[in-house]
Amino acid sequence: MHLADFMRVRRDLVEAALDQYLPPANEPPGKLHEAMRYSVLAPGKRLRPILVIASAEAAGGSPHHVMPTACALECIHAFSLIHDDMPCMDDDDTRRGRPTSHIVFGEAIALLAGDALLAFAFELVASNAARLTGDVGSVSEASQRVVEAMRLIARASGTWGMVGGQVADMEAEGHDVSPEALRYIHTHKTGALLEASCVVGAMLVGGDQPTIERLKRYGGHLGLAFQIADDILDVVGDEKLIGKPVGSDESRNKATYPRLFGIAESRQRAARAAEMAVEALEGLDERADPLRALAKYVVERDL
Amino acid sequence: MHLADFMRVRRDLVEAALDQYLPPANEPPGKLHEAMRYSVLAPGKRLRPILVIASAEAAGGSPHHVMPTACALECIHAFSLIHDDMPCMDDDDTRRGRPTSHIVFGEAIALLAGDALLAFAFELVASNAARLTGDVGSVSEASQRVVEAMRLIARASGTWGMVGGQVADMEAEGHDVSPEALRYIHTHKTGALLEASCVVGAMLVGGDQPTIERLKRYGGHLGLAFQIADDILDVVGDEKLIGKPVGSDESRNKATYPRLFGIAESRQRAARAAEMAVEALEGLDERADPLRALAKYVVERDL
Repeated sequence: MHLADFMRVRRDLVEAALDQYLPPANEPPGKLHEAMRYSVLAPGKRLRPILVIASAEAAGGSPHHVMPTACALECIHAFSLIHDDMPCMDDDDTRRGRPTSHIVFGEAIALLAGDALLAFAFELVASNAARLTGDVGSVSEASQRVVEAMRLIARASGTWGMVGGQVADMEAEGHDVSPEALRYIHTHKTGALLEASCVVGAMLVGGDQPTIERLKRYGGHLGLAFQIADDILDVVGDEKLIGKPVGSDESRNKATYPRLFGIAESRQRAARAAEMAVEALEGLDERADPLRALAKYVVERDL
Repeated sequence: MHLADFMRVRRDLVEAALDQYLPPANEPPGKLHEAMRYSVLAPGKRLRPILVIASAEAAGGSPHHVMPTACALECIHAFSLIHDDMPCMDDDDTRRGRPTSHIVFGEAIALLAGDALLAFAFELVASNAARLTGDVGSVSEASQRVVEAMRLIARASGTWGMVGGQVADMEAEGHDVSPEALRYIHTHKTGALLEASCVVGAMLVGGDQPTIERLKRYGGHLGLAFQIADDILDVVGDEKLIGKPVGSDESRNKATYPRLFGIAESRQRAARAAEMAVEALEGLDERADPLRALAKYVVERDL
């Protein structure tokens, strides 16, 4: 199993599906659709959709079964980046070397494009039921799983997850934060959606409760590993690779692992979190290998 | 049947449920929860939740069956008002005599409170399945209806509905608009969510297809009547009653019915839309009477 091949194939599938699902730019309101497409189709790792797909595969399903939900997670991620970049938030003019949404389309359209993407994500999840019926479940099972997926994704996106973490992150700026506060920020701001990606992937295709539990623990540890790695990259990374100026967290006085623990201990903590992610998958067969490889990859990206 | 009594009872139920469902202000992030509660619990007509409930009752259900979804519609409405009022949109400092969210909590929290309310709304809809099971359907039926309700509400909130209408409205500012363009704005910006409220209310409690179709047509006409009435009130209304300065649409060069057709013809069109809403309910029994009364009320509010 070559992780790079595994990821490339799924990334291509996800990008083709996103392009197909997203409202066309030649349908009104065209400027809004252009803005939605601009942010979602920007180059990216597609980590969340790949986690949905890889988890579905680890639980015995295929990419086809979960594609609308995988794409929904990417839309939610894009929505959060658009709003995060706005002048009243981080006020960033560029992201990954491209001008941010409000620079290209103006603040009002950027705000509304983010809103529309969040609503669109739930439309996608609702549309996922048809993909499951017959193949990996009855109509009744498919609907029940979609309702539960919707609940988990909504929770992971809002105040109990991503948005809650953003608020805590914002409030921590310029203050000393405790390790507990930092953990709260990280598990909510990025961790919740990564964990939800793993859980819903396995759940939608009918994974049993122990499998879902394993993927939930995996997602939790992976999210932490990912976030620590991101914090480290912000200090030591290559600007092109991370898509934002090196040191931008520091200059904003953001709460980060390197700031609290130093680089060396942060690296150890990231490696340990990745190990725990792999351990959480014990008992799953080789179909979970891409997830195992992904955990290592997350902490080995040029740290 | 006294409409005022009918509405007061349901408004009280909705407000008690909203207060119970919304995240408590004493749980972190408290400032975000405070902002969510500030906007949702602000005095209001609760038109959308009352439409959900009245439609459920017209189709043989009770308020209890649809309360989470009714409250979700109010959260989506509140989210749209918060973002609409922001400096990059309408830049309003007050709404219904109270300072707007970004004035009280700052722009960043206002933005995130809107986001969190939209996510929270879908969590509420997902939680509605349990209310239906046993009483008005099997687990399987309940889940299938909730999935369809989520799809409709998501569609009515995003680019195919409310957000799309907001973009069209914004783009029309300062331009001459055709009656067709104005209709597009109105059916999307406010109509879509009002129509969805009626449809999901009847659908969730197991209303049959003809009943759902009737309520869909009712909701469409009601939405138009409501919007024309709102446009008229903006010109001739009492500032206290409408909660914004009289003439504020005119001063913004907003596309409105009075601007296109004059007051007298706008009144006729509103009355005609209300009549068509009532006609759409033909064949439904007296449990639809509150909806009939509501259509008349909408165009008779001090026009």
